[in-house]
Amino acid sequence: MQRYFLAEPYEAKDHYRITGENYHHIVRVMRMEPGQQVFLAFRDRLAIIAEITDITEEAVVLKEISKELVEKELPVNVTIACGYPKADKFEWVVQKGTELGSHKFVGFPAKASVVKWDHKKLAKKTERLKKIATEAAEQSHRQFAPDILLLEKEQDVIDIFSSYDKVLIAYEESAKIGERSRFATTLSEMVGGESILFIFGPEGGFSPAEITEFQEHGGIVCGLGPRILRAETAPLYVLSAISYHFELV
Amino acid sequence: MQRYFLAEPYEAKDHYRITGENYHHIVRVMRMEPGQQVFLAFRDRLAIIAEITDITEEAVVLKEISKELVEKELPVNVTIACGYPKADKFEWVVQKGTELGSHKFVGFPAKASVVKWDHKKLAKKTERLKKIATEAAEQSHRQFAPDILLLEKEQDVIDIFSSYDKVLIAYEESAKIGERSRFATTLSEMVGGESILFIFGPEGGFSPAEITEFQEHGGIVCGLGPRILRAETAPLYVLSAISYHFELV
Repeated sequence: MQRYFLAEPYEAKDHYRITGENYHHIVRVMRMEPGQQVFLAFRDRLAIIAEITDITEEAVVLKEISKELVEKELPVNVTIACGYPKADKFEWVVQKGTELGSHKFVGFPAKASVVKWDHKKLAKKTERLKKIATEAAEQSHRQFAPDILLLEKEQDVIDIFSSYDKVLIAYEESAKIGERSRFATTLSEMVGGESILFIFGPEGGFSPAEITEFQEHGGIVCGLGPRILRAETAPLYVLSAISYHFELV
Repeated sequence: MQRYFLAEPYEAKDHYRITGENYHHIVRVMRMEPGQQVFLAFRDRLAIIAEITDITEEAVVLKEISKELVEKELPVNVTIACGYPKADKFEWVVQKGTELGSHKFVGFPAKASVVKWDHKKLAKKTERLKKIATEAAEQSHRQFAPDILLLEKEQDVIDIFSSYDKVLIAYEESAKIGERSRFATTLSEMVGGESILFIFGPEGGFSPAEITEFQEHGGIVCGLGPRILRAETAPLYVLSAISYHFELV
């Protein structure tokens, strides 16, 4: 069954009206008709099964049949922040990371980032990544399509530290000296509803100066096991481990 | 420091001689000289730091300086078996799965597999995947380059079940009915040195008949959380979770 993500929070109503891109998809792409059902996923993660009652020139009108009862979102909010990696790697992190349950993706220029994106390019990239995240959210049956935030300065990512309960930094040098417990310890301290910001370097990693700066603002460095993971693999390791920790154990 | 994987097990010797492709890489690509050091990773997972003492027309001669002491391999042997997925997805699973610690990759034609590879094509694919695995093993500083086994019949994968301590099958329908504990329970029953075969379907998943066949031969189905993972994402979830379980918690 198709799944559509709406910008507004859930509110009990007699009817729901869908316009814009979702209208186009239901009417022109899927050629749906009254009587057919879809999932509507609201901004506050509540999703309902709804039936089409009418299709007008501007809107698809639907009524609620039932609520989706299975919880499909991670119990903690995970934000994946990446120093801009090369080429299409970030698109790939967004697609796979959405499947694996990330709540938000943040990009920022780290010292070793090769790509340099100006304001205009960032706006265009943001739109493209939002589309990738929404498609992956639909495909993986999520109740929430992740947000995208692309920053212009490295300082901007430090400025968001204070809005998270935990801030961890994946650091290869920690792994090399055998640091293996901080990630798991941090997860075991968290309870449902809390938020964690997980920061990853680009291909060249972080400099000691960047790590010191992050630490001075409350970030904690941790290793991700004894093997060296690529820039685009590390975020997927973290999201898989968080799912395993909270959803399967 | 460069890392070279050798086909033989470790044996204490005065000198080690390297020929073939590794010789070519050391002498022609890296243009190394006597006095320089490399890692030599032997088939039995023991790795040493070795120094070049001589370079002849046919061989690079090295002497052992010290053993690599850090354990970089997962404490359990994990084999990832995939019903052949579309396009280059399997190459991608081999590259990322090697970074994440897989010991072996097995491919087989599942009922929903679209690609059909004959004997000749499989031999060519095997060589290509071995190369990808060895490069990824070097890049992620592993002590073992994973094996590749591409099978011609689905029955062939069932025939290898008996050589593993545990056989799990990732099954979407298990996830849908909320099965969430078998994977973690199975891991908690395992001890170092044991082996696990983890089976994944292609894009279309497994049919109920395939699942029944696997179960009749001792396979256990399990879910991987509430979100639907793509064919190529599920193996990475499993390897990350196994690393987290055994190496970080």
